[in-house]
Formats: sequence, structure tokens, C-alpha cells
Amino acid sequence: MILTVTLNTALDVTHRVPRLLPHTSHRVTGVTERPGGKGLNVARVLAALGHEVTATGFAGGPTGALVRELLADGTGVVDALVPCAGATRRTLAVVDETTGDTTQFNEPGPQIDPAEWAAFLHRYTELAARARAVALCGSLPPGVPVGAYALLVRAARAAGAAPVLLDTSGEALRRGVAARPEIIKPNAAELAELTGSRDPLPATRAARRRGAHAVVTSLGPAGLLAATPDGTWRATPPRPLSGNPTGAGDSAVAGLLSGLAEDLPWPARLTRAVALSAATVRSATAGDFDPGTYEEIAPQITAVPLPAP
Amino acid sequence: MILTVTLNTALDVTHRVPRLLPHTSHRVTGVTERPGGKGLNVARVLAALGHEVTATGFAGGPTGALVRELLADGTGVVDALVPCAGATRRTLAVVDETTGDTTQFNEPGPQIDPAEWAAFLHRYTELAARARAVALCGSLPPGVPVGAYALLVRAARAAGAAPVLLDTSGEALRRGVAARPEIIKPNAAELAELTGSRDPLPATRAARRRGAHAVVTSLGPAGLLAATPDGTWRATPPRPLSGNPTGAGDSAVAGLLSGLAEDLPWPARLTRAVALSAATVRSATAGDFDPGTYEEIAPQITAVPLPAP
Repeated sequence: MILTVTLNTALDVTHRVPRLLPHTSHRVTGVTERPGGKGLNVARVLAALGHEVTATGFAGGPTGALVRELLADGTGVVDALVPCAGATRRTLAVVDETTGDTTQFNEPGPQIDPAEWAAFLHRYTELAARARAVALCGSLPPGVPVGAYALLVRAARAAGAAPVLLDTSGEALRRGVAARPEIIKPNAAELAELTGSRDPLPATRAARRRGAHAVVTSLGPAGLLAATPDGTWRATPPRPLSGNPTGAGDSAVAGLLSGLAEDLPWPARLTRAVALSAATVRSATAGDFDPGTYEEIAPQITAVPLPAP
Repeated sequence: MILTVTLNTALDVTHRVPRLLPHTSHRVTGVTERPGGKGLNVARVLAALGHEVTATGFAGGPTGALVRELLADGTGVVDALVPCAGATRRTLAVVDETTGDTTQFNEPGPQIDPAEWAAFLHRYTELAARARAVALCGSLPPGVPVGAYALLVRAARAAGAAPVLLDTSGEALRRGVAARPEIIKPNAAELAELTGSRDPLPATRAARRRGAHAVVTSLGPAGLLAATPDGTWRATPPRPLSGNPTGAGDSAVAGLLSGLAEDLPWPARLTRAVALSAATVRSATAGDFDPGTYEEIAPQITAVPLPAP
């Protein structure tokens, strides 16, 4: 089983409007709701790939109840979310149907109290002991200690040595990386914040020296750059793909975890991650991947080894 | 008891953001939720004025449950909402804290099926028989017949002759007004759509000829214009008031209904409506009225009679 952790789960709401005009009133022509937060997105993609996957984190209030209901509705993800008194946050994406552009509003998330945090740690330790791989994803809700991810990396190691992938940003990433997770997956901005360097290759290598066994940097449409104990690679989509990049990073995480759980060599993990990411950009539904694009693109991607520094 | 009807209730969500920048991602710094839809806003103001008020309409899904929970939490409004299978819509107001401007997104509302509509009619008829005044407010959710308000005006008359105020727009208003409600309260745009005239005084009089006993046209910050069986008046705030106009129209409706229930003469109804409306613009919380402003402004407003045409 693969375990994904989403401490700050969300109800992802999408509003479609004919045209976004700030400071006016809009009639919403389409509404969709889905379980959100990076770790739940990753779990859904893993389940669609045929993996057994369990999702934990917090869920509370009417929004949390709806997240759990939607998760139970055919996603294939096992719900191991821990209740909290506060309400799960919403994220709202407003899609302008004229330009295709998206404007995003992210609520901060519920206040987690010490007893809720302790209940989560208990559940997590139990689940991590049975997991083949663990993904720790996204932001921390208010009340969760900023060093939470470092604690969770160490707890997974103590519980059963499942390798941990960490996908977060800012201080939570800085603290988490020091606990030596197996993989971190920053984007260019997160990497620059962590290392102080905007040059992707040296920054990716510098991030490894901070503690992660492997660093996989997302370069957006330009693919992935990975510095690992087995070497350094760059994997690029065969052609530029137009579409909606929402969830493409989460699909890349799912590809890396899937390869980690199957113990694939690094080049195969990277091509899978890039193909899933590209297939997500091409999907009609934001955050899902298009299986046809995935099948077509995967064989066209090569992970190119880069020379040692 | 005063009865307010909100067929398309809403969970009104407000997001505060430091600055609205279309096509970017925003961290929401403040979230508030309240029961919404014009009729629920009217009910809340009436209850705050000390009236016994009952609210009916539809509520369903997790959003509907939250609307009912918030309504029960100290508003003083008696909840007589009828359950529906679909989820109550959300409205989202995004407040730009730099400019103070609001951008609004309104979901369409749940699909109401014929059995739900029949259950509502049954409940409504029962309640209208006991009401001193009835307000029919806002848009119709999908599935409710476009002639719904005409039916509800006639049903109130048949049940117990409670006078009906109708506050809606478009085809729902056009059909409703033909059933001869006691009062309609269009704004300038709704009035122009109903009558084809953009000149407020002739248009207000033309709307009366379509069936309403009295027409009270909202002129925004310029106050109210009323054509009634007792004469024509204009009531204006003593000075321009800056603030948030959200809910000012609903407070004006509450003022008119309050005066109708107390059988006040028209000039007193209009000054109360204008004072409540102004006190809502000045309130710190969108949609509430500021009692201090109300007390201060009410004596300064005079309804000026206009000559017959």
C-alpha cells in the first residue's frame, strides 16, 4: 500500500464564468467539486494507475464531510482521514471561458489543536508501518508545528523504513529536508527559496546536500531534473503540450511514487512522472490524467544522463 | 408573523484578499459564511427589528445544512425551509482589501423536482394562512416553473389575504406582477426590463398599470420612488453615505414589510426603508444594518409627495 498524507485537505471548487470582470457580479455557468489538497490528488492518480493507496490527513466540518463523500465515490482511494473540529478549507478556481485563464482563491485551513495532532500522529505511525512508500504533500494547516514534516519523515523511518517523498514549500520544506527524506520534488521557485540559487542544476545538487537522498526539480513544461544517488538525469516531454497545468505537479509526484513502490530504476521513474504530468495537462478535467496521452507519450520520453559536476 | 420566501437560498461566502489580480493565485486572509438569498437577508433584518419572522424556501446538501445551522445561531428567524435533494448554492464575494471593491460569483442553485415543488407549495400555503405579510424574494432555482411567483401571490390571497411583496427580476417578475401583488420593489435596471422605459417616474407608474398595487423603485444611493394607491412619493437619504451596498436593497424590503405589517402610512414605510438601507451601507458587516445610523438617519428623511401625472 502507498500512503499519502494531506494535512491541509481541501474541497476544490471550480466556477466557470463566461468572462472574469473584476468588481462585477458573475453568473456561474458551471460548478464542479472534488476532493483536493496535493496528497489527495496524488492518491487519486495512484489509484487510477492500479496501486493500492490510502490517504490520511485531517477532515472536518461540512466541507470535510463532502471531501470524504467524494473520495468514497469511485476514486478507489482508502479513506484514513482523521477528524478535526474545524472545517476543511475550500479552494476556489474561477475559470474564464473566454481566455481559458484561471484565478485561484485558497482558504487557510482549520485550526488543528494539540489533541487532534496527537491523534493524527498515532494513526500515521500505524499506517506508515504498513506502507511501501509515503508521500507528505502540501501546506500545513494552522496549529500544526512547522517542523511537522521532519517528525513524519523520522516516524516513517522508525515505523518500518518506508521511503518518504516530501512535496511542500517554504519553512516546512526547509525543516523537512533536514530529516533526510528519500525524495523531495520542489518546483523552480521552491528550489530557489530553499537554496538561494535560481540556476536549476546547481540548485538541485545543492538541495541534495541539505539532506534529501534525491531531488527531483519540476521545470514546468520543460520536464524534470533529478539529482539522485545513482546519477543525474533530465527528462523532457517530446513536444510542448497546451492545456491546463492544474495538478500536473501532483501527477508527477504520483509517477515518482509509483516507480518508487515498484523499485524501478531512476530513468523509468522519471519518464513515468513526465508522461503522467503531460497527460494531466492534456486532460479535459483539471487534475485527472488522460490515459490515451499517457500511453502515447510515455515511450517517447528519454531520461538523458547529465555528467557529474 | 411575517413570512419570507427564498426559493434559491444560498450560503454566502466572503473571501478577503490583499489584492485581486486576475489569473493569479490568492491566499485568502479572511473567510466568513452566512445564510443568504434575498429572503433570508430580509428575514434577518426583520428579526433584528423585533418582528416575528418565519423563513421558507428550499435547503439541501451540505451547504443547505450549514445555512440552517447558521440561521439557528442567534438570528431569531424561525426556520421553515423545505428539504431538497440538490445542494443549496454558494455565492462567493471576493473583497479586494486594497480598493474595497467586491467581485461576486453566484452559483445557479439546485435542480428542484416536481415532488419537492409540491411539498413546498403545501408548506407555503399553511404558513401564508398565518402570516400578516409575505415577501417573495430573489431568483428561481432550476426546475421551479417560471410562473412560480404568480402562483404564490394567488395562493397567499386564497389562503388568508396576507399582502405580498415581490422582489425579483426578469421573466419571474413579469409573470408575478400580473397576479397583482401588493408591492413590487424593482431597481432601475429591473424596472427598465419590465416596462421598456429608463425614465424612473413614468416607468414606476407604468409598472403599476401592469398589476402591482404599489411599485417602489430603488434608485440606489438616491433613495426610493413609490407609486401607490395613496399617492406618489420620493424619499432620499439626508446625505450621500459611503460604505458597502451589499444587502441595502434587502434592508429596504425589510423596511417596507415592517411598515406593511404595522399598517403604517406610505410616507412612514418609505422613510423606514430608506433609513434601514442607508444603515446597511454604513454597517461594518455586509448585509447587517448599523442601529446607530438607523436611529440617527430615520428622523432626517422626508418622503416628498410628487404631483399626479
